[in-house]
Amino acid sequence: MLERFLAGDERALARLISLLEAGDIRGTALLRDARAHKTVQRSHVIGITGAPGAGKSTLTDGLIFACRARGQRVAVLMIDPSSPFTGGAILGDRIRMGKHHADNGVYLRSMATRGALGGLARTVVSTLSALELFGFDVIFLETVGVGQSEVDIASVADHVVVVLTPAGGDAVQAFKAGIMEIADVFCINKADLPGADRLQREIRAAQELGAHDEHTHWAEIVQTVASNTQGITTLLEAIDAHRVWLGEAGITARRLERARFELNQAIQDAARRLLAAREAELLPRLERGELSADDAVRELLYGAPPPVES
Amino acid sequence: MLERFLAGDERALARLISLLEAGDIRGTALLRDARAHKTVQRSHVIGITGAPGAGKSTLTDGLIFACRARGQRVAVLMIDPSSPFTGGAILGDRIRMGKHHADNGVYLRSMATRGALGGLARTVVSTLSALELFGFDVIFLETVGVGQSEVDIASVADHVVVVLTPAGGDAVQAFKAGIMEIADVFCINKADLPGADRLQREIRAAQELGAHDEHTHWAEIVQTVASNTQGITTLLEAIDAHRVWLGEAGITARRLERARFELNQAIQDAARRLLAAREAELLPRLERGELSADDAVRELLYGAPPPVES
Repeated sequence: MLERFLAGDERALARLISLLEAGDIRGTALLRDARAHKTVQRSHVIGITGAPGAGKSTLTDGLIFACRARGQRVAVLMIDPSSPFTGGAILGDRIRMGKHHADNGVYLRSMATRGALGGLARTVVSTLSALELFGFDVIFLETVGVGQSEVDIASVADHVVVVLTPAGGDAVQAFKAGIMEIADVFCINKADLPGADRLQREIRAAQELGAHDEHTHWAEIVQTVASNTQGITTLLEAIDAHRVWLGEAGITARRLERARFELNQAIQDAARRLLAAREAELLPRLERGELSADDAVRELLYGAPPPVES
Repeated sequence: MLERFLAGDERALARLISLLEAGDIRGTALLRDARAHKTVQRSHVIGITGAPGAGKSTLTDGLIFACRARGQRVAVLMIDPSSPFTGGAILGDRIRMGKHHADNGVYLRSMATRGALGGLARTVVSTLSALELFGFDVIFLETVGVGQSEVDIASVADHVVVVLTPAGGDAVQAFKAGIMEIADVFCINKADLPGADRLQREIRAAQELGAHDEHTHWAEIVQTVASNTQGITTLLEAIDAHRVWLGEAGITARRLERARFELNQAIQDAARRLLAAREAELLPRLERGELSADDAVRELLYGAPPPVES
């Protein structure tokens, strides 16, 4: 399987991602072996986020075609952490995959959430590593919803595109959820609807309020009508411009943030595993005051052998 | 100091809480020693939460007098995690403390937030333990704001009173923030304002929507006008009724939740300490793919000696 993966067999890639999703240690082992055999080329990791109905899928499809026209190999990772079901997503995905089916340079994968976002977030990061190692030039990370989970997931991308529409309330909700702060590029999609210019002014006003000094970098605002590919090229150029603005140092800083995010998730997973194995014993002692929380942590971390992973 | 604490000297209690706030290990050591010398009597821990301006302070003051009339010793822990400043709180606190100054059976303490909520939440739990050990019959835990931090902090109380007012939007915001689900008792304060009955009907309707079967326990709704002590006795009785409904088993379950919360916070603190000490070394290796997150965690947790606490 390692050989097939290294040879560029997409079925090997799909199998690896499934192993990573399942938390199977053969997945991480394979990823490690593959890393030892191949130099990682950094992909451009582009997060696309926004409320349901903002037209993210259509937008991403447009971006895929634009990247393909440049000769780039493209992967899309679609995530819906808010939905425990995948039925709808799978149907939609099939239609989308159909569009790109004949194209070997495009790989689409949707990620079923399994309740625990912690687990999902980790899987997303390791899947990104797998896609990067496989050799895609561009990886789109598409998340549905507006909330902390989107902020978290977006933090693993090199560039975050926040998609809004002139339809009422989008911007307000996004502001409240803190998603505006993570935008590197704003995309006002469905810009043929009334209110697109007003929304653009609102975003600009919010940016001015938030600007700390004249060196603050303002996220570019691009209007698109994804359904007829209007503005797609401009959007891609805005992402490119952000990459130039970031520079090598900026991108490395983002990658270190991604590593920190992954490590934090991994530590929390390990802590949960450790606690779950012994909580029936430790919590009553803590509750009765026989043990302090610090002592309990010491006992958990250093008084017991490392947990056996499933 | 241990002797003074055990003898009931409030200055020793104040000093212990300051040590716990500062994360000084002498605090946890003293708490442990005190536990070894004294049997813990469970206090009634009552969380009071709601948006700023809902009248929580006045309400708590009323409850203090009502508890004192029953001959109970009362402590109040006031927390404002949303504010990085304590100036305003300190002024307000002084006025409040003035009211109860002559009364040895009342102890008020406000907690300055120090940025990291994790740290604050842990301090709150250990301070609760200190107050409980000191021998208060009732501890009010007063939090300002409506958000995840309030939900977290409220989860360490035996009873959670959510304070709302007829003034517009309170209920909607609380519903959105998930604070309605944690209410054991609803208090509609400023019930002399128009809209109190409407708000009560809205809460009841929301409860009916959320009810899973006929055994669902509905949080009681009490209307108060704290400024003239109207409804305070009824509110206290509703809290008593909730304690009866919980029973010993229910209260123990809540205490185990509090222990789980504290332990989770302590694990996260330990993980942060571990990571902070070695992130400059580990993150670049993770970013370059030389190390997997699981390997990094193993190295953090088991490859290094336990971190030295400050």
